[in-house]
Amino acid sequence: MGDGNGPSGYLRNNFRGVGFWNPTHILPHERGKRISRMDLNECPYPPSPKVLDAIQEAATGLNLYPDGTCPQLSEIITERTGVPGSNICYGGGSTQLLTAIAEISVGPGENLIAPDIVWRRFQGVFQVVDAEVTRVPNHDDASIDAAGMVSGIGNNTRLSIVLTPNNPTGLMLTEQELRHICEGTPENVLLFIDEAYHEFAIHAGGPDAIEIVKDRKGPWVVTRTFSKAYALAGLRLGYALCSSEEITNALRLATSTFNLSGVAEAAALAALADTDYTQFILDENTREMNRIKEGCWEMGLTYMNSVTNFISIDVGVENGPVVRAMRDRGVRVSTPGYDATGTYIRASTGLPEDTDAFLSALKEVLAEQSG
Amino acid sequence: MGDGNGPSGYLRNNFRGVGFWNPTHILPHERGKRISRMDLNECPYPPSPKVLDAIQEAATGLNLYPDGTCPQLSEIITERTGVPGSNICYGGGSTQLLTAIAEISVGPGENLIAPDIVWRRFQGVFQVVDAEVTRVPNHDDASIDAAGMVSGIGNNTRLSIVLTPNNPTGLMLTEQELRHICEGTPENVLLFIDEAYHEFAIHAGGPDAIEIVKDRKGPWVVTRTFSKAYALAGLRLGYALCSSEEITNALRLATSTFNLSGVAEAAALAALADTDYTQFILDENTREMNRIKEGCWEMGLTYMNSVTNFISIDVGVENGPVVRAMRDRGVRVSTPGYDATGTYIRASTGLPEDTDAFLSALKEVLAEQSG
Repeated sequence: MGDGNGPSGYLRNNFRGVGFWNPTHILPHERGKRISRMDLNECPYPPSPKVLDAIQEAATGLNLYPDGTCPQLSEIITERTGVPGSNICYGGGSTQLLTAIAEISVGPGENLIAPDIVWRRFQGVFQVVDAEVTRVPNHDDASIDAAGMVSGIGNNTRLSIVLTPNNPTGLMLTEQELRHICEGTPENVLLFIDEAYHEFAIHAGGPDAIEIVKDRKGPWVVTRTFSKAYALAGLRLGYALCSSEEITNALRLATSTFNLSGVAEAAALAALADTDYTQFILDENTREMNRIKEGCWEMGLTYMNSVTNFISIDVGVENGPVVRAMRDRGVRVSTPGYDATGTYIRASTGLPEDTDAFLSALKEVLAEQSG
Repeated sequence: MGDGNGPSGYLRNNFRGVGFWNPTHILPHERGKRISRMDLNECPYPPSPKVLDAIQEAATGLNLYPDGTCPQLSEIITERTGVPGSNICYGGGSTQLLTAIAEISVGPGENLIAPDIVWRRFQGVFQVVDAEVTRVPNHDDASIDAAGMVSGIGNNTRLSIVLTPNNPTGLMLTEQELRHICEGTPENVLLFIDEAYHEFAIHAGGPDAIEIVKDRKGPWVVTRTFSKAYALAGLRLGYALCSSEEITNALRLATSTFNLSGVAEAAALAALADTDYTQFILDENTREMNRIKEGCWEMGLTYMNSVTNFISIDVGVENGPVVRAMRDRGVRVSTPGYDATGTYIRASTGLPEDTDAFLSALKEVLAEQSG
């Protein structure tokens, strides 16, 4: 094989020498063992039994491609959001849509604007589209600077990316901040609001981005997912609510219409119908999140005031060794970005026993590392 | 909303004014009715009962993200192909990988080379990457011109795309033709061989592309899928076998490692283990394909000599009206490309009763349309 291991000319510049990165990797010592998975912002509870029934029924049809426009699911989403089915594009997780949204709007040499602190997959998205990126520094409390997200837009900016609640901070924008961004972003810039943690924001009394962005004169896209509050990360179903059919069809072209699992629509319908189960997940999450916050407070640690199912905590020492030592103890947490630098770790909520394991492991590890 | 319906400046040129295209769409008159789905090259049989059991078991873990590198499945694929797990990238169907392979290798203004007759999603891929495309005319019998695929490569060519068996022709390349392409494609060009219908080719006594491409000095990728011979189109699991880790990691960056369903790996393992069921599918397919060919021969129609689960037939009249009239009769077939032009239709094999329905509907429709 002539291409060896070094960077190779037949790949585009931005795809050369990419390192291996697999946050979903299960280490050999973790196989078949009960571990606390608190690094991927997953729901610790299995999907609703009604969802499992729906999947079992739909699975017999997995020899067929499903209708990628999910007509039945779209009816319900339209009812709840006012966005017509023609303006909804489904993705294999909203993760697939993030990349597609960037791809349809910015090309090499063009500009996009995003907060400095942002979910690490976005780093991958920026690399894929090979755009120039304006990073807007977050406020001192790590919240997004809404005014900066508007004033930072330049003549070459094609896309503005906002997350509410944001990941890894868990912080959401206020209605006023969202309005400022929606109104201040020029009409020739696509405004993209990632609402992967939408249901947690609503549960915490936060604003609904769709209701605000609808008043915007320029183009917009809002993404949501079934991965988090519906306990369906492994289903891979997210959706983009778009301001026009043109944006929607561009996203469908980028993602192809052959991108959804044949059980996704049935599972999503069952998940939306089982409101008690979603409420249970959200309530349990709040309880365990409060326990984590209390535990950190007792340990004298500061943390970001997350409304979601994950929290970023300042452990006061270098985060990389803490994350590794926690993982050795069966508790998986993460650093907030690609790089293991800084003093913050990010942990998602788990079952009550995961909270116990997390707090006691963190105490041990910090005693070791600070001592 | 300020973006109206017309082409809009905030989208990249190649994503403006894209039309709605949804081959998976179920028409209102088809809902809840037994129709013959012969337009999407699906397997007409449900997944193996062992696969359904595996899915049911894995579904309880759908709250979690699976390991996107499928370590257990990789072990088996490595055993069968000799390609190490570090050189295998999984996709949400091989369809997702087609786009990613083009994205990592060609950018706007750069060149890729492909046969003129090619699966229509590739048209979408070409549009997504905004590359200059050299289309190599197929031979008169619609087979790929292997010599032309080599001689057509220019200084600006970064990617060569070959399909064996090809879609919509169903024709495969010989070992000699594959060797000519593998040897003749320069070392600075990524050679991509799409083997979505690999299992059908082997069943028909054809060559195994991996065994041939391994001798190539330059870089290569081969894609395969669980969608066809394993009756799992709706599972969305395909894989790319790559000549280097660098290519593999570039594909993982483009597709993200959060792209697979949580039931995919378990289902694929069960499907590979149930060799009797795969043999049953392949044998049934051959029988029904032969019945379709005989029926066409009796009607005096010529067709391409497909080795796959679909066949392109010259109906002698404009194909668009034929496809629509067949669909009105409950038999879904397709035109070979995006456009309903020419006199060929493409039909995939179904159950025995689908073959009956297809042949009798085609007789009726052609009597009408030619009369």
